Amino acid sequence: MQRALRLAGSPGVPLGPNPRVGCVLLAPDGSVVGEGFHRGAGSPHAEVEALEAAGDSARGATAIVTLEPCNHTGRTGPCSQALIEAGVAKVVVAQRDPNPVAGGGLETLADAGIEVEHGLLVDDARALNRAWTFAHENGRPFVTWKFATTLDGRSAAADGSSRWVTSVTARRDTHVLRALCDTMLVGTGTVEIDDPQLTVRDADDRPLPQQPLRVVMGERDLAADRRVLDDAAETVHLRTRDPIEALKTLYADHERHHVFFEGGPTLAAAFLEAGVVDEVVAYVAPLLLGAGRSAVGELGITSIGDARRLDLVDTVVLLPEEDGELINLRLTLRPEEER
Amino acid sequence: MQRALRLAGSPGVPLGPNPRVGCVLLAPDGSVVGEGFHRGAGSPHAEVEALEAAGDSARGATAIVTLEPCNHTGRTGPCSQALIEAGVAKVVVAQRDPNPVAGGGLETLADAGIEVEHGLLVDDARALNRAWTFAHENGRPFVTWKFATTLDGRSAAADGSSRWVTSVTARRDTHVLRALCDTMLVGTGTVEIDDPQLTVRDADDRPLPQQPLRVVMGERDLAADRRVLDDAAETVHLRTRDPIEALKTLYADHERHHVFFEGGPTLAAAFLEAGVVDEVVAYVAPLLLGAGRSAVGELGITSIGDARRLDLVDTVVLLPEEDGELINLRLTLRPEEER
Repeated sequence: MQRALRLAGSPGVPLGPNPRVGCVLLAPDGSVVGEGFHRGAGSPHAEVEALEAAGDSARGATAIVTLEPCNHTGRTGPCSQALIEAGVAKVVVAQRDPNPVAGGGLETLADAGIEVEHGLLVDDARALNRAWTFAHENGRPFVTWKFATTLDGRSAAADGSSRWVTSVTARRDTHVLRALCDTMLVGTGTVEIDDPQLTVRDADDRPLPQQPLRVVMGERDLAADRRVLDDAAETVHLRTRDPIEALKTLYADHERHHVFFEGGPTLAAAFLEAGVVDEVVAYVAPLLLGAGRSAVGELGITSIGDARRLDLVDTVVLLPEEDGELINLRLTLRPEEER
Repeated sequence: MQRALRLAGSPGVPLGPNPRVGCVLLAPDGSVVGEGFHRGAGSPHAEVEALEAAGDSARGATAIVTLEPCNHTGRTGPCSQALIEAGVAKVVVAQRDPNPVAGGGLETLADAGIEVEHGLLVDDARALNRAWTFAHENGRPFVTWKFATTLDGRSAAADGSSRWVTSVTARRDTHVLRALCDTMLVGTGTVEIDDPQLTVRDADDRPLPQQPLRVVMGERDLAADRRVLDDAAETVHLRTRDPIEALKTLYADHERHHVFFEGGPTLAAAFLEAGVVDEVVAYVAPLLLGAGRSAVGELGITSIGDARRLDLVDTVVLLPEEDGELINLRLTLRPEEER
């Protein structure tokens, strides 16, 4: 299974609507007769790749798969059927398929007389497709809320000037995180004020070939000259102020699993209040402003005991890459776990 | 000199108005004939201790001293005179004495025909007595401003409740830093609102035997029931709102070299505006409040280009020691160096 997980996480596998999956076929003597991994939507599933590599040796073999073989016909046929037809004797799975459309593969295999097992290294398998798993289990995308703040909690100065709160290094780092998501989300207010392009660019400021979906939510119309409406990537305008409604639409209608949310303080507060911020990435610039726009807006909290509590899971010191830049910090946090 | 620096930094040497000093006496063949270090106000100076250890072997020896030998009669006689009388041939010094009252020792030694040198490992020697050196060079104490903040820059909730912004671990850590200073400073406002005792306590919440001077600054009277007026330590009330005036008084009249400043946002802003914050220690609690008292008050900054820029010099992750506590961060910062 560890080998199957490594295969699944092979570098260069693009993120898309599909999960990362790895498969290893073992002969009864324990030798590897076939391996495969899924390379993204439209290409063969891991099991099919492994079966093809194994050929006739698949008969009587044990298939080790990181994810329950699919049971439905999508762009490729059901893997459960392919395993049955190849004469596999046993299937060991890490994670059961949380996607209601594709699940049920293990039952189909068992009905065909194949021995099945699941749960081996399931935590590793879930972590491999963290956002995908979350989205299917919750019916909405995983939300990473990113904000930049000074040490004293400001996102802009009193006159509204906010460019360069964080360093060049921090802004480049943001693009690396954006590239791991399939959706960029802001509110109409941010589009009106900051006019971001919401594309993912490399260290030389060139757009990456694959761009996340750009989503603007809010009831206001967007001015036609806004950069988010250019042809650098697809854009969707969701005419709602309800975070949950927006997220459910992104999951159901657009197959979105991981939203990178860079909304302003008001929309961020709405997401926090709705309980749909699953991860917080805070870039902290060692600046003091003393006044200006708060990085986080009104949350309806009046007493310290009601503060939203977060678990700090990662702290990264971002050393300056350019002259005149300050060291910045990237903090990654999650809502406090129930204890 | 490295040996002399190590002696000077011997554990257990209490901080006080005096600097840490180490001295090694070398015979002409390079062998060590005497060593000494200063153990705090009232005890013999490092040179005197080394000369006593060496006895007659001091004649013709080279004295390696981390700080220029004093030239004045304080609680002990001048060390320059003691070195001359012992017949030392050469004196090598790291740091010249920045204290105008005690300086001039090298000139006295040279006038007596002794070979003198200075500047060897001077940066290490200055670092050993960082606050002391700073205070004598600037005529005021070094100021460490400590504040606690939520991730969104708040020090208290909207209803004023502020206890437990940071974790038990962070508050214990604060006491470790307090113990390294000789002065605790707050404003009359903090005394009125928070009524802190301003003592240094150990991990079991017991007061340490040696307490920094407690200083309250501001023009308002203090209510007699305030904890800062109890007999746990000495207290001084400076009736001024001018940070520079207060600091000069603490240096000139109270021999203070390192102020641990825990003022509220208004007084902190006054210190920042006066340019007398030499170090910032920020405890960051991973909480979001969305409203409430800002950790840092109005600084008269309106544009992002005028933000106060800090260099991050240290980041410490404070793991929880008690159930139900969150990981906190301690950030240490200095005003950005001219580049």
